[in-house]
Amino acid sequence: MEHAGSTERTRLRRLPEKAAFDRAVVHRILDAGRVAHVAVVGDRSGRRPTDPGLDNPSQPYVVPVAYARDGDRVLFHGSTGSRLFRALAGGAPTCFTVTLLDGLVLARSAFESSMNYRSVMVLGRCSPVAAAGKLAALETVSEHLMPGRWADVRPPTAKELAATLVLALPLDECSAKVSTGGPTDDPADLDRPTWAGVIPIRTVLDPPVAAADLQVPAPVPGYVEDWE
Amino acid sequence: MEHAGSTERTRLRRLPEKAAFDRAVVHRILDAGRVAHVAVVGDRSGRRPTDPGLDNPSQPYVVPVAYARDGDRVLFHGSTGSRLFRALAGGAPTCFTVTLLDGLVLARSAFESSMNYRSVMVLGRCSPVAAAGKLAALETVSEHLMPGRWADVRPPTAKELAATLVLALPLDECSAKVSTGGPTDDPADLDRPTWAGVIPIRTVLDPPVAAADLQVPAPVPGYVEDWE
Repeated sequence: MEHAGSTERTRLRRLPEKAAFDRAVVHRILDAGRVAHVAVVGDRSGRRPTDPGLDNPSQPYVVPVAYARDGDRVLFHGSTGSRLFRALAGGAPTCFTVTLLDGLVLARSAFESSMNYRSVMVLGRCSPVAAAGKLAALETVSEHLMPGRWADVRPPTAKELAATLVLALPLDECSAKVSTGGPTDDPADLDRPTWAGVIPIRTVLDPPVAAADLQVPAPVPGYVEDWE
Repeated sequence: MEHAGSTERTRLRRLPEKAAFDRAVVHRILDAGRVAHVAVVGDRSGRRPTDPGLDNPSQPYVVPVAYARDGDRVLFHGSTGSRLFRALAGGAPTCFTVTLLDGLVLARSAFESSMNYRSVMVLGRCSPVAAAGKLAALETVSEHLMPGRWADVRPPTAKELAATLVLALPLDECSAKVSTGGPTDDPADLDRPTWAGVIPIRTVLDPPVAAADLQVPAPVPGYVEDWE
């Protein structure tokens, strides 16, 4: 099994049986997700934790971001006006976590009741994608979230591109955790007269809702039908 | 509009039109979620950032946790064997973020394409729930995730309770962000011959799957039918 950049920091110390370091597993989980939770430390001013005047140098902030995997890195973007994104672009250590919730696990005991999920944690530092690569990186994110859509939209203007920070985080140091299957009850609990099992959880896309200001008659694009 | 503990740190500096400080909004979002992403800074050993030997004092870690809101606090739990949970129990500053993804927003331009979502960020420090309150706190979390289930499961033993850290984080300093509705395109883009609108995203529960080791014939409990 390949270890996908596992290090001492990302090696799971708890529940090692749920650790799945296989790079393919990491990639599959990242490819199945849409939103990551990204952390940065310090206040939102972009100051470094060692700067004076920071109210709490160990205060983390966690924000959701849309992302895509691009080979051995993840890409996401934000506004150049966001202090948090500027701190990330400046190389602040970050943690990028994607979690997909797959089910409620109904065990016979409270202690063994749990949830099935797949999760990836990436540690590292982002670098800003240089101007020459921004357009392609934004297309990669767009095509992950809305496959086929890029050809239909007006591409970013130079001004819009300049207002957008595109960040790349390498998948050098990462780990996956997968919890799947039914409850693992204590043998002594198996004869309890209680149903046990899993309630699967799934994310679905509902039928498209046209914009109120749709001025040009246009059908829902065919590529939308393939999204799931 | 009530401000739900908004402070300078949690006031949204970007897109203030999406800020919703109303405490009821914060509560509704928290009540609709199942998983939060919780951050703590430093390595997983529970050492403080000022301790010697820490490889990187500003490295955040973000992990998913199941949670429930209990009045003006959120509750979640983990193993006493987890260094990350011990650091949280020790009062390390944390950020607790819940994000619900509601839709893909297909605008006419790449720049305005986005996602609809609801999100809450809570800053603060956790305290461990004392032994006398642990059972009730675990019931609260269980009844949020699996309403009605608590009466059916074997309650935790003293040993299981001792192995469980239950953490409470007050909703003193928090903010909500809600992005909803259709695309807000630049007027100059409105006559593009491209469909625009929203693809709603929803989480659904699939039919129950019985555990392979179900030894006692038992029907799926009626309360499961009400879960959504």
